[in-house]
Amino acid sequence: MHAEVGQLLPEWSVERWFHHEGELRLEDLRGRVVAIEAFQMLCPGCVSHGLPLAQRIRETFAKDDVAVIGLHTVFEHHDAMPPHALEVFLSEYRIQFPVGVDLPSSGGTPETMGRYALRGTPSLLLVDREGRLRAHHFGAVPDLRIGAEIASLLGDSTPGHSDRTEPPTAEACGVEGCV
Amino acid sequence: MHAEVGQLLPEWSVERWFHHEGELRLEDLRGRVVAIEAFQMLCPGCVSHGLPLAQRIRETFAKDDVAVIGLHTVFEHHDAMPPHALEVFLSEYRIQFPVGVDLPSSGGTPETMGRYALRGTPSLLLVDREGRLRAHHFGAVPDLRIGAEIASLLGDSTPGHSDRTEPPTAEACGVEGCV
Amino acid sequence: MHAEVGQLLPEWSVERWFHHEGELRLEDLRGRVVAIEAFQMLCPGCVSHGLPLAQRIRETFAKDDVAVIGLHTVFEHHDAMPPHALEVFLSEYRIQFPVGVDLPSSGGTPETMGRYALRGTPSLLLVDREGRLRAHHFGAVPDLRIGAEIASLLGDSTPGHSDRTEPPTAEACGVEGCV
Amino acid sequence: MHAEVGQLLPEWSVERWFHHEGELRLEDLRGRVVAIEAFQMLCPGCVSHGLPLAQRIRETFAKDDVAVIGLHTVFEHHDAMPPHALEVFLSEYRIQFPVGVDLPSSGGTPETMGRYALRGTPSLLLVDREGRLRAHHFGAVPDLRIGAEIASLLGDSTPGHSDRTEPPTAEACGVEGCV
Repeated sequence: MHAEVGQLLPEWSVERWFHHEGELRLEDLRGRVVAIEAFQMLCPGCVSHGLPLAQRIRETFAKDDVAVIGLHTVFEHHDAMPPHALEVFLSEYRIQFPVGVDLPSSGGTPETMGRYALRGTPSLLLVDREGRLRAHHFGAVPDLRIGAEIASLLGDSTPGHSDRTEPPTAEACGVEGCV
Repeated sequence: MHAEVGQLLPEWSVERWFHHEGELRLEDLRGRVVAIEAFQMLCPGCVSHGLPLAQRIRETFAKDDVAVIGLHTVFEHHDAMPPHALEVFLSEYRIQFPVGVDLPSSGGTPETMGRYALRGTPSLLLVDREGRLRAHHFGAVPDLRIGAEIASLLGDSTPGHSDRTEPPTAEACGVEGCV
Repeated sequence: MHAEVGQLLPEWSVERWFHHEGELRLEDLRGRVVAIEAFQMLCPGCVSHGLPLAQRIRETFAKDDVAVIGLHTVFEHHDAMPPHALEVFLSEYRIQFPVGVDLPSSGGTPETMGRYALRGTPSLLLVDREGRLRAHHFGAVPDLRIGAEIASLLGDSTPGHSDRTEPPTAEACGVEGCV
Repeated sequence: MHAEVGQLLPEWSVERWFHHEGELRLEDLRGRVVAIEAFQMLCPGCVSHGLPLAQRIRETFAKDDVAVIGLHTVFEHHDAMPPHALEVFLSEYRIQFPVGVDLPSSGGTPETMGRYALRGTPSLLLVDREGRLRAHHFGAVPDLRIGAEIASLLGDSTPGHSDRTEPPTAEACGVEGCV
């Protein structure tokens, strides 16, 4: 059984979790939108854009609404990226959401990666509140699009009431001059 | 009457339009979400992040769903930013959505800027399909958040069915290696 | 007479200076390396990379060694970039080195631009301590290369004694951990 | 004996080389300026700015003039960054200059790191043609400064004759318009 957009996403198979005690199943996250970031710690695109996007998702949405899950899907150079090295990587890069190690299989491609039909890393999967796969991205994706996809899955009818009173966080010109 | 989040946004007062023939009223855009980017052509933050965000909104959402409108709200150094200079600026920066010149007033702050209670530039206002102001940002705002706010205003119940088959647009590692 | 690399660079013709009182001639700068940044205030590449490079040159080298001179060479859309608008631009973008307005000519291309055989903006010219043109760049140029070219013109035999004790200005890992 | 700026830099102690056959000693590089980039493969600042700078140095200067040497100085989390993992890292990040693995010592800090008095990673050391240490940087350093330091060590009296005729590599405005 393979993952198809619009269908229930099958459970992942995880050998070990970081930043989560005990078992964690996709089913446990029903009711929340789930963003699954599949990565390899030595994949440059994962470091430069995939994981930073996952971190921005974590910072932007409430934990009760959106779960961010990392999946370490090592499909090559397995010896260079064992779980104890991943642990250091996560610490140095200050990644704090739960990260599961995809279960190795004899063929090289780990279990979940095959089941989810991932083409490589980074891949970002979005799962709706009912557990259905709703978006499957490979490579870089614009934040604006991902923000929109997540919000549409959240399905809120009246969010967006925002009137930020905090000072601007970058260059702007106000009546007292530019900052 | 001032603009308040949650209330109908009053009409703008525009002296002249670029990239739009004839008059253009906010009311004409009912049924669409409207993103209003208020800027000044010589405001560094508008050039570096406000206008690029507006352009990404234009590229990301369908025109039938989201209207992107620029509003040139010159509240200082009026002589340095007259409409004929704005026209050159828009051409050089390849800005192609409609841009209205906020109607000057005797006090320095142009009409619409005062009516919308803008604190400065860049400011981004989001208006829902019924014409109500739903978000008011001053300064830099993360794309992920704006994407989410726009999508929540669009109120689609089942978008996000995306399964991109195009090749990744940046570094990624696939089974044939990294690109 | 046109400018050729290796030859004395002819004097510029400047209509008006900003950030400099009185006249300023290239000859007055003999003994210093001179970096001339030719730009137009509404040229996107000048704003995004040409002028920021000039500012970094100003910050990196001592004023006694390297003079940084801006040259506003408007060859199109003259009405959109008059001197009084340039003044506002320089203020908003916090450009503080001397900027001269290239003398307009009847043909559209201003005097100095023609004399220096500039192909457009941004252009960066490097002049040695004796007044000879030594490098002529059009478009983006890597900082590493410009830094090297300027230093080779400075001709110091023993600079580079640097042992920075200040804390690192970006992510680094020390014995007490990463910052 | 410790490294001091202005003094001969002692030899490194390297356990194993990548991208170099046989032994490689600092003394072998006499006559060239040597840029030594000390890094750890799981140090974020090394990945984001230290190693990219080293690569730009490699691309900017001739190999006969400047040798770029990587030094993998693992002073923490040794198990996570063994040589066989470094090999994968270098391949994925397309780093092609010689990289030596700093010889481990019983105390955690590897031999060369101690001898060179490195404070952490990334560190960039510049050595002149006679083998003297001339600059020692920890953390991020501006390209303009490094370019200048290298050129001053090269001590060329007449470089910088550059008159690039290739088309500009980024936004610029020419007489036929902006690109």
